[in-house]
Amino acid sequence: MRKLRRLLIGRPLGNEALNEEKFGVLWGLPILSSDAISSVAYAGQEILIVLIPAIGLLAYTQLIYVSAAIIGLLVLLTFSYRQTIENYPNGGGAYIVAKDNLGVLAGVTAGAALSVDYIMTVAVSISSGVEQITSAFLPLRPYTVPICIAMVLFLMIGNLRGIRESSRMFGIPTYAFIFAILSMLVAGLIRIRGGVAPSKPSLQTFEPITLLLILRAFSSGCTALTGVEAVSNAVPNFKDPPVKHAKTVLLLLSLTVFMLFGGTSVLANIYYAVPGDKAVIVQIAEAVFGRSFMFYYVVATTFIILVMAANTAYSGFPLLVAVMAKEGYVPRQLSMRGDRLSFSNGIILLSGIAGILIVIFRADVTALIGLYAVGVFISFTLSQSGMFIKWLRERGKHWVYKALLNGLGALVTALAVIIIAATKFTEGAWVVVLVIPVMIYAMLKVKNHYVAVAKQLKLSIEELETLDISNDHYRNHVIVPVESVNKASIRALRYARTISDNVTAFNVSIDSESAQKLKERYSALNTDIPLIVKYSPFRKVVDPLLKFIESAEYDYKKGDMITVILPQFTIKKWWHSLLHNHSRIFIERELVKHKHIVVCIMPLQLKNDDFILKSRKDKQL
Amino acid sequence: MRKLRRLLIGRPLGNEALNEEKFGVLWGLPILSSDAISSVAYAGQEILIVLIPAIGLLAYTQLIYVSAAIIGLLVLLTFSYRQTIENYPNGGGAYIVAKDNLGVLAGVTAGAALSVDYIMTVAVSISSGVEQITSAFLPLRPYTVPICIAMVLFLMIGNLRGIRESSRMFGIPTYAFIFAILSMLVAGLIRIRGGVAPSKPSLQTFEPITLLLILRAFSSGCTALTGVEAVSNAVPNFKDPPVKHAKTVLLLLSLTVFMLFGGTSVLANIYYAVPGDKAVIVQIAEAVFGRSFMFYYVVATTFIILVMAANTAYSGFPLLVAVMAKEGYVPRQLSMRGDRLSFSNGIILLSGIAGILIVIFRADVTALIGLYAVGVFISFTLSQSGMFIKWLRERGKHWVYKALLNGLGALVTALAVIIIAATKFTEGAWVVVLVIPVMIYAMLKVKNHYVAVAKQLKLSIEELETLDISNDHYRNHVIVPVESVNKASIRALRYARTISDNVTAFNVSIDSESAQKLKERYSALNTDIPLIVKYSPFRKVVDPLLKFIESAEYDYKKGDMITVILPQFTIKKWWHSLLHNHSRIFIERELVKHKHIVVCIMPLQLKNDDFILKSRKDKQL
Repeated sequence: MRKLRRLLIGRPLGNEALNEEKFGVLWGLPILSSDAISSVAYAGQEILIVLIPAIGLLAYTQLIYVSAAIIGLLVLLTFSYRQTIENYPNGGGAYIVAKDNLGVLAGVTAGAALSVDYIMTVAVSISSGVEQITSAFLPLRPYTVPICIAMVLFLMIGNLRGIRESSRMFGIPTYAFIFAILSMLVAGLIRIRGGVAPSKPSLQTFEPITLLLILRAFSSGCTALTGVEAVSNAVPNFKDPPVKHAKTVLLLLSLTVFMLFGGTSVLANIYYAVPGDKAVIVQIAEAVFGRSFMFYYVVATTFIILVMAANTAYSGFPLLVAVMAKEGYVPRQLSMRGDRLSFSNGIILLSGIAGILIVIFRADVTALIGLYAVGVFISFTLSQSGMFIKWLRERGKHWVYKALLNGLGALVTALAVIIIAATKFTEGAWVVVLVIPVMIYAMLKVKNHYVAVAKQLKLSIEELETLDISNDHYRNHVIVPVESVNKASIRALRYARTISDNVTAFNVSIDSESAQKLKERYSALNTDIPLIVKYSPFRKVVDPLLKFIESAEYDYKKGDMITVILPQFTIKKWWHSLLHNHSRIFIERELVKHKHIVVCIMPLQLKNDDFILKSRKDKQL
Repeated sequence: MRKLRRLLIGRPLGNEALNEEKFGVLWGLPILSSDAISSVAYAGQEILIVLIPAIGLLAYTQLIYVSAAIIGLLVLLTFSYRQTIENYPNGGGAYIVAKDNLGVLAGVTAGAALSVDYIMTVAVSISSGVEQITSAFLPLRPYTVPICIAMVLFLMIGNLRGIRESSRMFGIPTYAFIFAILSMLVAGLIRIRGGVAPSKPSLQTFEPITLLLILRAFSSGCTALTGVEAVSNAVPNFKDPPVKHAKTVLLLLSLTVFMLFGGTSVLANIYYAVPGDKAVIVQIAEAVFGRSFMFYYVVATTFIILVMAANTAYSGFPLLVAVMAKEGYVPRQLSMRGDRLSFSNGIILLSGIAGILIVIFRADVTALIGLYAVGVFISFTLSQSGMFIKWLRERGKHWVYKALLNGLGALVTALAVIIIAATKFTEGAWVVVLVIPVMIYAMLKVKNHYVAVAKQLKLSIEELETLDISNDHYRNHVIVPVESVNKASIRALRYARTISDNVTAFNVSIDSESAQKLKERYSALNTDIPLIVKYSPFRKVVDPLLKFIESAEYDYKKGDMITVILPQFTIKKWWHSLLHNHSRIFIERELVKHKHIVVCIMPLQLKNDDFILKSRKDKQL
């Protein structure tokens, strides 16, 4: 186990290895934008999947309108978030902004929503990435789910080893992807200018264009905006001056999303891409480039940027839950760094849940998308509302203008939450609508527990000064359960002697014969430690032991402590642990439920097995 | 968990509930014969499955010859085993007979072979039983595997509760099944006399009748003989005189198998049953009775007797492994009786492996049968060889005749092992041929380990008398790891005081700030216990602690003991255990590897959470 872990994860690192690489605009843009930019690979496609079955060819026109609305929303969010960056130079995630300005409940809600968002980012991005590959190489299609799971494991192990999000290596694929989509846009438009007329697919209109239909398409497309908040979370990672750099990167990010999302919508419109067997991007690339080098280049960069988008969740989620864990809203273990300084438990949790979702939804992007955007937009809304309240309260320079901008942002994103939750409700959003309140409740319960524990353990300096620990406050009794009189029990009795002058040996027999044999052997010992033998037909030690402690026979007084000594073999080979019954563990688990009983584990080391079985002589052994 | 267990398994029973019911011939026959007799349901069918695809209609003639050969083998085994019964009135399982006469290795081999046999009995009998049902009710066919697993769970729970094999209730279905098959034989023959001529199916001959083909058919049919050894295992369960009763029952059992197996072969021959969609017995029953009451009666009794055959493995396997566990060849836990006095671990192990086999082989009897007969015939061979050697050594009355009979039995069953292993090798027998040596090796390793442990723990009476445990042999040092100065650490320090005058508080800090804060609070305490603070960047306690113990700074002398006190929260609600990091368990596991370190678990009881979160005021908590 240990060796395998070393091989996969690498040797442990000391805390001093923990220092962050800082970046400027050139590398900040690609590193922080992969999540947002990669949405291009599925957002347009998902809009068409809603529209085409209903209104056929008319879908392509509506695609442009819906895309335009989403880009409008993007512009609003960009200016709203620039204000967040300015005011939270230490990183302004929705959790912090909401908690700071709206209180605990809003913070916890944002934390829950963001967690869902990160998990869905992994599930959706990996599923979409693998869909690109299986669209280009159809024979791989039946292996979609296993390939996705392999990718999740790959990211998990990589992040447990401690991949740095800030490593420049991660910036290159984003530029490669931007180049791929822009090349495709240019080449695609040139082809059309050159007189190529793509054949219209025979699609029928079955329904009128209703508002509900457009809203459903809009909800699907909103996934294009996931990841926009990444820049505001990462302000402290920028070189000086961080705020200025971050604001520039956010602007450039929006511009890029605008170009790529708009561009692919236009191309899908021109080349009549019909979602189905093949991913839309792959269809467009095939129509524009044929099966040339550029086709494979587009497929490969799309796949890679989607995997990288999933990877951003691997840096976001563990950090978020670590912050929440430190504040006591989720289990403390999530705030502990593993051997390689990564938040291992968060990484494993994220991989586990994302993996389960991929298996349940068979890596179907359309099915997963129903669960996706709700979480993101809830966190947008809370973050913007927080900023709005902040302006109202602080009333600094230009506060009215600023409050209006964030207020509008909050309003529009809140509207989007309602639209998405309503139109996608039956398609999966209900899960999120159900899960988020449950998560909030659980987080508050967890906090409650930690606060209760801390209160019960707390001692003020004044209390410390008056405490008396130098005298014995109580008597310590020792009980040594013995199964037989052997070296192990002698060792335990000797140890018992050193810690107390009040020692009792205790045995539970199931028949009088074995009890008699034990008594005989024990009486051979030169000791004044009394041996108590109890009879129990139920083959268990704990109950007779507890009964004995409470009986008048035992001179235990309330307030005293009782130490029970249990021997434990030290296992040299893994399979030896299968050979010893684990009654020690069961007994320990039962005894520590009693606050007056201390359990002592006495280690016993065995030499390696040196016995060689000889056929006839050892028959009787 | 506990409540669920009570519901399924029932309340615990005391040892006094352990007494055996004895039976005579009338109930001994049906109770001990279900395994052997139930083979009728698949043995003939499996012979036809080998023959029909090769030689078409000629298969039916060859079926009679092959069945005759198997019945010949049955007669030989019957007389051989009557001698075993006579000489092992306390039960003569192959394990005991082989170990007594041929040594440990042969005994262990027989034990391994028998274990495989029992596991395969469950897998094959349940699969065949469910096949009968799904043959009669074809719409159930797709649910074959789940139904099989449900049956395994049913048997598992039933046996964990402690079903008695000897309960008379279990005898009735055997008689009902015998009656069903005999009625079918009589009715089938009458129909033919009455002039009904079943139509011959159009089957073609593709191959000549070769010896290899006949041997393959014979191998499949040998499964009819599994279970014949049951009577010799159970001699002590008979009323006085047990040997006479057992011998009579074995003779009657053989006679019954002869009648039923021969009878169904004849019927299959007359009615041209073709294995395929429907089990052969179900086809014959349909041809003879139509879909009348008698048809359903045959199907139901066949199903029930097959389930009961599986149930006999549930009494045989746990008892066998318990015997081997007592002698140290398999993990000791297998010899412990559960709450209801059944050998729970053996029952669960049997269910687990049989369940896995059913899932892997999709409950396909033909696929499973390849693994079945090898194990049984290895144990036949070892048991008969053991008897042969016994006669040679003891040379009692009529020893030459007796030796000849058992020798012939050994020779013929050994030949059968070779035939089965060779002809079924590629159809699954290779698994068994591979697994049995691995099992033997593992069993010897396990024995080795237990012997090595026992030797190291052993103390003779003389040694006991010279031992001195009344004086302190060494000094006991105590170390109390403290994370912070709170009620838990105070409680641990106080306890430490009562067990030693040499106590050290120990802390590992990851930064100087937290170290400073701890030192300040500690210095407020009125105590002479020194506090040692170590800095470690690896966020672990164990390594710095061990390093400190070995350092010159600590006044530990070789031979002394060190007690480390670890606090442990007593968990009131299951989910609380998720909220506390289990570093205590990891630390304990690392420390007990050192024979000079004793780990003390100090229980801490928390009151229930009484904290209610208020939105604004508690923001800073």
